[in-house]
Amino acid sequence: MTVGTEPRPGRGEGKGEGQSSSRRHNLSAVLHHALAGSTRAELSQLTGLGRATITSLVAELLDLGLLDEQGPANLGRMGRPGSRLGPPAAGACGVGLEINVDYLSVVAIDLAGRVRYRARSERDNRTAGPARVISAGAEMLAGAVSEVGADGLVPVGLGVAVPGITDRDGLIREAPNVGWRDVRLLDHAAGSLPPGLPVTVDNEANLAAVAELHHGHGRGRRDFVVLTGEVGIGAGIVANSRLFRGAGGGAGEIGHVPVSTRGPLCGCGNRGCLERLAGQDAMLSAAGINPAVLPAEPGQPTGVALLVERAAAGDPAALAALARSGRYLGAGLRIVTTLLAPEAVIFSGIFVALAPWLLKPAAAALHRRSDAGVDLLISSLGPDAAAMGAATVGLQRVLDDPESVRRAGRLS
Amino acid sequence: MTVGTEPRPGRGEGKGEGQSSSRRHNLSAVLHHALAGSTRAELSQLTGLGRATITSLVAELLDLGLLDEQGPANLGRMGRPGSRLGPPAAGACGVGLEINVDYLSVVAIDLAGRVRYRARSERDNRTAGPARVISAGAEMLAGAVSEVGADGLVPVGLGVAVPGITDRDGLIREAPNVGWRDVRLLDHAAGSLPPGLPVTVDNEANLAAVAELHHGHGRGRRDFVVLTGEVGIGAGIVANSRLFRGAGGGAGEIGHVPVSTRGPLCGCGNRGCLERLAGQDAMLSAAGINPAVLPAEPGQPTGVALLVERAAAGDPAALAALARSGRYLGAGLRIVTTLLAPEAVIFSGIFVALAPWLLKPAAAALHRRSDAGVDLLISSLGPDAAAMGAATVGLQRVLDDPESVRRAGRLS
Repeated sequence: MTVGTEPRPGRGEGKGEGQSSSRRHNLSAVLHHALAGSTRAELSQLTGLGRATITSLVAELLDLGLLDEQGPANLGRMGRPGSRLGPPAAGACGVGLEINVDYLSVVAIDLAGRVRYRARSERDNRTAGPARVISAGAEMLAGAVSEVGADGLVPVGLGVAVPGITDRDGLIREAPNVGWRDVRLLDHAAGSLPPGLPVTVDNEANLAAVAELHHGHGRGRRDFVVLTGEVGIGAGIVANSRLFRGAGGGAGEIGHVPVSTRGPLCGCGNRGCLERLAGQDAMLSAAGINPAVLPAEPGQPTGVALLVERAAAGDPAALAALARSGRYLGAGLRIVTTLLAPEAVIFSGIFVALAPWLLKPAAAALHRRSDAGVDLLISSLGPDAAAMGAATVGLQRVLDDPESVRRAGRLS
Repeated sequence: MTVGTEPRPGRGEGKGEGQSSSRRHNLSAVLHHALAGSTRAELSQLTGLGRATITSLVAELLDLGLLDEQGPANLGRMGRPGSRLGPPAAGACGVGLEINVDYLSVVAIDLAGRVRYRARSERDNRTAGPARVISAGAEMLAGAVSEVGADGLVPVGLGVAVPGITDRDGLIREAPNVGWRDVRLLDHAAGSLPPGLPVTVDNEANLAAVAELHHGHGRGRRDFVVLTGEVGIGAGIVANSRLFRGAGGGAGEIGHVPVSTRGPLCGCGNRGCLERLAGQDAMLSAAGINPAVLPAEPGQPTGVALLVERAAAGDPAALAALARSGRYLGAGLRIVTTLLAPEAVIFSGIFVALAPWLLKPAAAALHRRSDAGVDLLISSLGPDAAAMGAATVGLQRVLDDPESVRRAGRLS
């Protein structure tokens, strides 16, 4: 799975990869600028392409249903007014599903980058097994597709966020906190999804990073890390303004960075892993809260909500547990910043609600040697960040290769 | 400093960045494919651009002196033979200078990627101070420019590799192992360099990674890490086929990743830093060799050469020192692979000569939890890898933006 344009192949790579890359690049560049609101004259200036080329590319994008004429521009200024282009009110949208340990979440995002649909269902996915969880997710997706369809929106791609390591072919290699191994999502969902809908599966931290890059604190930042998690802890890495997945999608496993020579034995076989010392279960246990995934009775607060409540009330065990987790997070982030020198670390997932107590001890432990500071920020995207990133990835294919819409026959 | 094409600006970034990006992209893409040896017809197929556009772009590149007609293609096949394009025998070249603790190195590379000049001078740069070191480097560069000039090669860009952290404006912020801080290279070298020559300064590990990407084991790999060093230890990170520098060029500081709770106090203020436990001085001291930078008498072997000699002879102290360093390197690489999941780690710098003794204990300590393996490779580029990367970066500007040659008036 890739987000953003592919780099031009380096010397020594296969020539085939470059096929039609310039044409796709031009169409994609024009779409990108036009969605932000431009006239044809401005597009010509922005891309360096001639007016005739722009006119033909815009005509194709209008025909594909990816752009709309927004009415005359330059009113009150000299010269013949041009028509301003922009995103269509209806048409293509991306849909995203997040599967996490104790909830499912669905989001749809349109070409203007607006969230057009949002739904969330709390449930215990540790015990249900992949077939039941994925089928519940597919049902939520079907609901989303039907709802946005009433507004004239057509899904052109689906992204799925999972709490584990995935490969580029949609195989969930390992999602230890829900107990899945080598699960192929489409084996369980194919029948319930719109036929032919391209599906991309990726790690929740990676997709939370994509959401920040396009919709959150990552806008305008080149290099940053999203720290997220609940039971596990993961990092989404954006390097050179692109998501960095690493080989086999395995990058960002900050939960398994050693921050102590002691600590409980981790599922990975080592001791001292960050997630065993600063993850949700570690924090809740240290605060004297049962880390069962869902409350025993419906309507009772979840473990994290209880921890927030107690910390706000000044409960010493809760405050000590958070201070300890904050210090471990800072130790982990010191290693991350030493290796990656990000401009910012964005706290996401459960760390958003807990940030008031975690940030200060984390910043103190982070203590970087270099003069360059790192901003510690709190995500503003809410609990559905990974689902937003998944929906963005669903849309991204079409932004990178507008003609893929025609090939898939999606909007016709 | 950037290597490879810039990503298209994301939404929310300034529009100015996109100016003429499509035109530059097309010219650069055509140059890239043509240097690998293509006919105009093949270029049209490879880029998706029309024949007329290709003809005009190729004419411009020929005019800029960046391409040459290599003679007829398709001999013996049906149809009118096209002329095969390729790199010119003379014309643009990039020059690179590496300043390291105990040597200076200069390399020139032409548009075909061939090393056309190579020189090295061993000297103690710890005590000489920046003015004398940089002036000696500038003298070596002047010699290189004059030598390659006799072959008709004209430098279009200079890269400089330093053992420290640099910013994008050529300021060497910190090079602790030569004792430099806030050194502006051009303050000491401007008068001795060809006027108007664009200069890029970057960290040696970053430039060793660029060299691997274009000329070494990094060709065809998307995500890899180059482990290099002598007194210090650094990593050059390639993510999504591009060098990843991090904010302020600070990425890859693996030498300051903690691999022990003990260890000598590091200049960074912490204990247990990898380079204090596995760097050149640590290894030599542990083997009972005086870690002075240069031998007391000219002609005697350097410390590393002595260590290799003793290890090869089975000296127990040397073997124990190398085994210990290997284990620490493996512990550091385990953290790197947990966070970055590279396809490969390439041993460069002094680690090339020491690899026969370091690789095995490093691989054992690396012990990754994920199924995905990581290749541990030994650089084949020789001791001038960073200088080769610097020369490549000097050339890269012209590959990314061929018209910059005309603007700078270099080849005319």
